[in-house]
Amino acid sequence: MDDRFRLSASEAEHLAREFGTPLYVLDEGTFRGRIRAYRSAFQEAEIHYASKANSTLALLKIAYEEGCRIDVASEGELRAALLAGVPPYHLTLHGNNKPLALLRWGIELGVGEIVVDALEEVDRLLSLPAGTSKLVLRVNPGVKADTHDKIAVGHRASKFGFPPEALKTAVQRLLEAQRAPHGLHFHLGSQILDLAPYREGVSRIVALAKELEIELDWTPQLFNLGGGLGVRYTDQNPPTVEALAQTLSEGLIAWGKPYQLGQEPGRSLIGEAGLTLLSVGVVKEVGETLFVAVDGGLFENPRPALYGAKYEVELIGEPGSPTSGTVVGAHCENDVLYEDIRFKRAPKADDLVQVLSTGAYSSAMASNYNRFPRPASVLKRTNGKFELVQRRETYEDMFAREIL
Amino acid sequence: MDDRFRLSASEAEHLAREFGTPLYVLDEGTFRGRIRAYRSAFQEAEIHYASKANSTLALLKIAYEEGCRIDVASEGELRAALLAGVPPYHLTLHGNNKPLALLRWGIELGVGEIVVDALEEVDRLLSLPAGTSKLVLRVNPGVKADTHDKIAVGHRASKFGFPPEALKTAVQRLLEAQRAPHGLHFHLGSQILDLAPYREGVSRIVALAKELEIELDWTPQLFNLGGGLGVRYTDQNPPTVEALAQTLSEGLIAWGKPYQLGQEPGRSLIGEAGLTLLSVGVVKEVGETLFVAVDGGLFENPRPALYGAKYEVELIGEPGSPTSGTVVGAHCENDVLYEDIRFKRAPKADDLVQVLSTGAYSSAMASNYNRFPRPASVLKRTNGKFELVQRRETYEDMFAREIL
Repeated sequence: MDDRFRLSASEAEHLAREFGTPLYVLDEGTFRGRIRAYRSAFQEAEIHYASKANSTLALLKIAYEEGCRIDVASEGELRAALLAGVPPYHLTLHGNNKPLALLRWGIELGVGEIVVDALEEVDRLLSLPAGTSKLVLRVNPGVKADTHDKIAVGHRASKFGFPPEALKTAVQRLLEAQRAPHGLHFHLGSQILDLAPYREGVSRIVALAKELEIELDWTPQLFNLGGGLGVRYTDQNPPTVEALAQTLSEGLIAWGKPYQLGQEPGRSLIGEAGLTLLSVGVVKEVGETLFVAVDGGLFENPRPALYGAKYEVELIGEPGSPTSGTVVGAHCENDVLYEDIRFKRAPKADDLVQVLSTGAYSSAMASNYNRFPRPASVLKRTNGKFELVQRRETYEDMFAREIL
Repeated sequence: MDDRFRLSASEAEHLAREFGTPLYVLDEGTFRGRIRAYRSAFQEAEIHYASKANSTLALLKIAYEEGCRIDVASEGELRAALLAGVPPYHLTLHGNNKPLALLRWGIELGVGEIVVDALEEVDRLLSLPAGTSKLVLRVNPGVKADTHDKIAVGHRASKFGFPPEALKTAVQRLLEAQRAPHGLHFHLGSQILDLAPYREGVSRIVALAKELEIELDWTPQLFNLGGGLGVRYTDQNPPTVEALAQTLSEGLIAWGKPYQLGQEPGRSLIGEAGLTLLSVGVVKEVGETLFVAVDGGLFENPRPALYGAKYEVELIGEPGSPTSGTVVGAHCENDVLYEDIRFKRAPKADDLVQVLSTGAYSSAMASNYNRFPRPASVLKRTNGKFELVQRRETYEDMFAREIL
């Protein structure tokens, strides 16, 4: 069943009138529902919301209310979570290149966990007071997930995590310094549609853990087995959260000891809970192609250009005679947004379209390319009311940094 | 000769101390020099600065001082030019999807030229008072330039401009309404390294102009033949400005009547006049690869991820034993920035690197992905002094739009 968030025609028209377009619209109910699905499938596991997917403060607050830990991968994401009211011990500090100052601040704040990514970082940590933050070592499991290269991060040639030898050195150094790490972590990538890489990843991390136990007499308490489950953009059919939970717990049977499990979904929680509302402008036939220009583009959704990502686009309003077209943006660049879209009737100027499943990595990656102001985000509350949670950028905002 | 802008070691160290990294550094001398090269090669032609490449206000002011017209492709770019002190009649309003309100405002302001892109836009213009803005019709010349698909814009299946039939209709409608267009325009794309597409483009536009003259008794006064000349990122060898000027004027001999020529370079003026200064953080060997993590990434230069763009990266400081590595960003994503970089010695934490030729489409496309603040831009004045022209984004800026 397609239960992705979408607007009714009257909602769409109301929102366009009230807040203008382009507009990001998020659904509280869908987001909470997805978090609950993870919490129910994963029982006692730590569920971390990977805030890079969408760190609108209102969402961080909801994720925390639902019992999520929040993954932060930069000073800015850390600040966002604090501003949203998340207590530091509910935060996990991530990143392949954390500045010393950020590590120090994280420890001073008492963030719950720090995911350690490199030997250099071990040394940096050992130069700082221990504090209360638990250290979790990110393993490079050498598993190549079948997803876009840019978002596959668990393969051998990825910048992330410790390859096996370096991992042992890291554990050793930490043990010698009486700073025993708490657990192990991997992350295979993003938008994964198949459970096989997870199965392979767990089996490798369990093997590594056993080696470490035998060789260094260290027993990990926590296995954070990443996130990365895909969502439906068009016709994808990602595994269910239950199937993922089962795969991971089956894989961990081989471990044979008590453990705490961690999961860090981002897109999988917020992706289908968001959509983008756009207005049609110029409609033009060039050769065989019907170009439908909208007031969006690369600035509000760079994923088509970055990853060749496809989306479902629905024309708002009554049907008529269906037609096909290519949705293009408003940039001075060949920004084809959504190709081969089937419209229920010919689009015309001032029509509205909704682009589904844009909750993750749209507002988070938005730019001012061509000096377009970044859109507002509106949250549909569980009572059906729409609330502005991120206001539209003004030109005053945009020019505030200029010095003439 | 490689005269691209670069910093000396002492300049780089001074800038890093004074302004921090990541930092965009722009060179006034190189920018003015490139504009003058165009003005000298193209003599009486209108030289438009395509501001989407980099619309930092200080640059728009310089371009105007050097006698450029400014191309603006959105309300934001129009506002930027006005804030920089450019008089409206020096502006050319571009874009494939200009809202009616923007067209109205442009006409009220008296922008010098409006580049008309579609029949729908002709109708919109005819619904507005004529004003003083000259109308220039953008032709889709059906020429495919050999560049990245996303920035090739002059081929038949591009969203831009009028295919031949629609062009005739446009001229006809405008003539009937006593709003005779001023000229014709094409743009073939960006980062073009070969003169052949220009030669083909001119020959097509001249043929079209002759047809229009015979069939509709309309004579274009202006031929704006786009911009798009490539720059040196690594080992490219773009045609000189003189060679481009010669190619275009040779092509226009066939026209055989007086004409005004227009050129609209963006990247070609500012690309090599800018660089990005970054600090090295974690350095890590994974298998065969040396990963050199910097404090930049997709947020400050999305072009490697968007277009597979390559850049030259230079380590600042004394040489030693050379080594190769891959420069990666600080994102929670597999953001390989610059692959197979030859370093003059092994990079280590706190080293500085300069990435050359980042003047175009870096700050213009920057985002807050992973909540990284956008870098400052510093301008090296012709007197050698460095001046802040775009301050670094603060976290206060970043969170100003959030409503909790």
